[in-house]
Amino acid sequence: MNHTENLSYFVAHFVDELSKSGVTDVVISPGSRSTPLALMFAEHPKMKHWVNLDERSASFFALGMAKEINKPVVLLCTSGTAAANYLPAIVEAYYSRVPLIVVTADRPHELRDVGAPQAIDQVKMYGDYVKWFHEMALPEIENNMLHYVRSIASRAVSTAEQDNAGPVHLNVPLREPLIPNFFLPNLWGKSESSAPFFTHFSGKKELSERQLEGIVSHIKDKAKGLIVCGPQMDMEFREAIFKLAMKWNVPVLADPLSQLRAGKNEKGLLIEAYDTILKSSDIRAKLKPDYIIRFGAMPVSKPYLFFVKENRDIPHYVVESTEGYREPALLNTQYVYADPHAFCLACAEVNLENDAEFTNRWIELNNTVKRKWKEDSEVLTEGHAVTTIQKCLGDNHILYVGNSMPIRDVDTFFMGTSAEVKIIGNRGANGIDGIVSSAIGAAAHGKKVTLLIGDLSFYHDMNGLLAAKQCNIDLTIVLINNNGGGIFSFLPQAQEPKHFEVLFGTPLDLSFQKIAHLYEGYYARIESWSHFEDELEKAYQSNGIKMLEIVTNRDENVSWHRELWQDVEKMLLRIVGNH
Amino acid sequence: MNHTENLSYFVAHFVDELSKSGVTDVVISPGSRSTPLALMFAEHPKMKHWVNLDERSASFFALGMAKEINKPVVLLCTSGTAAANYLPAIVEAYYSRVPLIVVTADRPHELRDVGAPQAIDQVKMYGDYVKWFHEMALPEIENNMLHYVRSIASRAVSTAEQDNAGPVHLNVPLREPLIPNFFLPNLWGKSESSAPFFTHFSGKKELSERQLEGIVSHIKDKAKGLIVCGPQMDMEFREAIFKLAMKWNVPVLADPLSQLRAGKNEKGLLIEAYDTILKSSDIRAKLKPDYIIRFGAMPVSKPYLFFVKENRDIPHYVVESTEGYREPALLNTQYVYADPHAFCLACAEVNLENDAEFTNRWIELNNTVKRKWKEDSEVLTEGHAVTTIQKCLGDNHILYVGNSMPIRDVDTFFMGTSAEVKIIGNRGANGIDGIVSSAIGAAAHGKKVTLLIGDLSFYHDMNGLLAAKQCNIDLTIVLINNNGGGIFSFLPQAQEPKHFEVLFGTPLDLSFQKIAHLYEGYYARIESWSHFEDELEKAYQSNGIKMLEIVTNRDENVSWHRELWQDVEKMLLRIVGNH
Repeated sequence: MNHTENLSYFVAHFVDELSKSGVTDVVISPGSRSTPLALMFAEHPKMKHWVNLDERSASFFALGMAKEINKPVVLLCTSGTAAANYLPAIVEAYYSRVPLIVVTADRPHELRDVGAPQAIDQVKMYGDYVKWFHEMALPEIENNMLHYVRSIASRAVSTAEQDNAGPVHLNVPLREPLIPNFFLPNLWGKSESSAPFFTHFSGKKELSERQLEGIVSHIKDKAKGLIVCGPQMDMEFREAIFKLAMKWNVPVLADPLSQLRAGKNEKGLLIEAYDTILKSSDIRAKLKPDYIIRFGAMPVSKPYLFFVKENRDIPHYVVESTEGYREPALLNTQYVYADPHAFCLACAEVNLENDAEFTNRWIELNNTVKRKWKEDSEVLTEGHAVTTIQKCLGDNHILYVGNSMPIRDVDTFFMGTSAEVKIIGNRGANGIDGIVSSAIGAAAHGKKVTLLIGDLSFYHDMNGLLAAKQCNIDLTIVLINNNGGGIFSFLPQAQEPKHFEVLFGTPLDLSFQKIAHLYEGYYARIESWSHFEDELEKAYQSNGIKMLEIVTNRDENVSWHRELWQDVEKMLLRIVGNH
Repeated sequence: MNHTENLSYFVAHFVDELSKSGVTDVVISPGSRSTPLALMFAEHPKMKHWVNLDERSASFFALGMAKEINKPVVLLCTSGTAAANYLPAIVEAYYSRVPLIVVTADRPHELRDVGAPQAIDQVKMYGDYVKWFHEMALPEIENNMLHYVRSIASRAVSTAEQDNAGPVHLNVPLREPLIPNFFLPNLWGKSESSAPFFTHFSGKKELSERQLEGIVSHIKDKAKGLIVCGPQMDMEFREAIFKLAMKWNVPVLADPLSQLRAGKNEKGLLIEAYDTILKSSDIRAKLKPDYIIRFGAMPVSKPYLFFVKENRDIPHYVVESTEGYREPALLNTQYVYADPHAFCLACAEVNLENDAEFTNRWIELNNTVKRKWKEDSEVLTEGHAVTTIQKCLGDNHILYVGNSMPIRDVDTFFMGTSAEVKIIGNRGANGIDGIVSSAIGAAAHGKKVTLLIGDLSFYHDMNGLLAAKQCNIDLTIVLINNNGGGIFSFLPQAQEPKHFEVLFGTPLDLSFQKIAHLYEGYYARIESWSHFEDELEKAYQSNGIKMLEIVTNRDENVSWHRELWQDVEKMLLRIVGNH
């Protein structure tokens, strides 16, 4: 066999096997060494390819897409620093358990570590941030090497998806010439078989009856129990968790990323306002639970963190479908490794009733906060931006939430909605990087996506907008512009004025209108809440990039938040005082 | 001692020791966990701090600055993906031997791997791309810990600079509260001592007389010798290498990044046009040397690579000041690890004379190409852009050259100039990323910097422009806009039209005028060569960002290059035919 045949069949079988194993999308950044892979991905009849110039943006684009379509997305780049640009998104994918298949083209061995151009050591370059690394063989079709290449592709997909999902890395050495031949017979292999190379039957962890009894026997009737659900992406989990909650009459403290605050199900036990409720230590003291069962990752809320730290003497159950140690409060934790659905349904078979007064108190406090949030405001505050977005979101919408202030504002102000909304954030490493591209990736398959983001985070990944323009992806951006790092105004360094503005305030002083127009997007500066509602409705009816800028003031924002909390605290203290 | 005292003294001594060890500049990206370090760097009387929001841009900014000031620059960021954004620049620094001191703030051990926010495993996160990693102790001032923290800072600077320079990584765990106290007595330690903690006397490698004789004894009198100098940053090396060349009458093939093409020294033996001369295999055959002595990294030129591969039977000497294996042609190489200055001067003591006809042939060919390049052209070509820039550069100017096409065009068209110009490129990994920030970093200390860059590479690091605007750094950008990946039009995939434009052409279709104005920069679209000269002169007299856009056409550019080469090849063949 000659070089071109070896190259073409080897790469074609690799791409075809990724497809057979369930991959539908590949995000490609242009480059030379990756040419045979890029061409073959583009040529494969079932692969959709997305071109994204900046590898950092490309990798977050793939991350956002994988979160939305809930299956692995392939990333492809050339050799050298191109691959290094993937690291932030790989780190995020690893910690937020998102399946990615990272394919880096590489120079062959004889061109490594000898000063050849664009040759860096790519072996295990992502360290422990990937679940699996494999250095591929050079393209060859004899010696069973087509079985080999299919086995690697099939395994990569399964490993990325299995258990705690995450990124895998395949490094692919390729020799010149790099142009494959599409016209070889049976390029994709035998077409009659659509089965993947490996089939995986992977069971779910289920507790034994004895283990389950062991847990439930410690949960007393008429106790003050709490269910908590942190960030998780399973849209179907709602049913099981509320079945258990309603059976036991237990309040469910639901993180904004728990997927429990939205949807058509009964929400009588849903506590969305716990971040506000738990801000006061006096109130926390009145709400001491007897046990907590948590699902999902640790919630975003800092008051909740204080709450559990003050209650380290009670049993804390953390339920995870597979191994994990996500308990940053350093509590004595009872880790339950079992499928959360099955666990909820099994518990719901047990007859138990929560302390009704305790449950009702949570509900009353929650309703009080929700009523307060419904009050009108003339001022353009970050909180009211969230309540307005909440009103306007429809079924199948996605709200992509930036880190730093936006996720905290959504936590505080996004109360339950009956619309079937998915709320997504990048909470693996909580970076402000890559958020724009993540949202665009989530929007690529046609879902209506609203991105709520601060100005610094938006700027960090401005490059991501190119893909929206080039691939005709629609995105509504709600830009909270406080001209700098708003979150720092809440931190102690704000009291240290000497270096504050330069080191932490970091005003951009950029025109976001100009940025929107650069990418041929629509731009509006929001003047009032009714204006905002109108613009949101218009944005959801139109195509392309729509940027709605809400200009706030960092100092005013801090005062507004603090005054509001004082008001609310008084109201809530009155209630707990009554009990 | 209380927490604040431990924190303040520990961090202050760290910063002070970096200063005492010679560091003058720190590039800070805003964040929370890094607060004590950021504040202390800002407070130190001898440290200049630069704030750069996007960590990827920040790290390339530091890289460019380190290349210009020729000493280590400190990078500081917060925990999480912030640190991951440094990887591309760290890889580039490692392979291009640029000293950087990367300081990443981290969560303390008890908040690691437990799902705490913004906590990722930062231990050895840059793998083998750094020369040294050290996980710092928590701030403490008893138990000799102020000696410890000074020893680490001092060692970090020395390790980054020593031998093959490169990046080092210090990971610094910090507990809350994060605000230091600037008003403690003797915050920076005893002020009377300005000596660093460690003093380093580090010798240079010098060959023994016997070793030197061994080398010279293989170099015959009247032989056809060649000296080659690839990319290197030592501005003083010129004198030694030309002393040797003139003594032996050997042609010096000088890469554009060798720092030999510019300056006031005698250039009779300087061969700048070898990339053009060696394009034709017929001409290469007529120029077979008897030996090659190379300094610096492998030259950029691909024809030169063909040339050495065709001459693997002759002795190849590669002189490096310390260990290295930068020989991608896989030649049997005689590695000479010795100080290149001393080596040149020692060789120049030996009486040897090159084959005069051979030397004269190179000079004649070189002059022929140079005359050709001086011919006027009406068309806006990438080659004439280079010759015009060359004309306009003055003493102490820096030309920062982008990868992909610009560096190749500079190699081909930038002939000798008597102006004291430094030409810099990022040739460690040859990425198109980070070039804008690198150039801005090189310009930060006031040098006049001209950046020659293509549209894709410019777009990749557009974020870097913010630092120029915020820190009032002047930069002249010559943007060669061929609306996409120009280099791919020279590669075989250009013959594969089916997927070419989407996967490789990748047109941006962006208005660079809008981008210049976004950052309050000046913009001009170049209409003719005289217009270009005028605009360059104007740009060098004015402040801020000046963008001069030259719009070329990818296909026309390929035809123009190819026709020119055919013309030149005929002229050169006539010359070698005459000998």
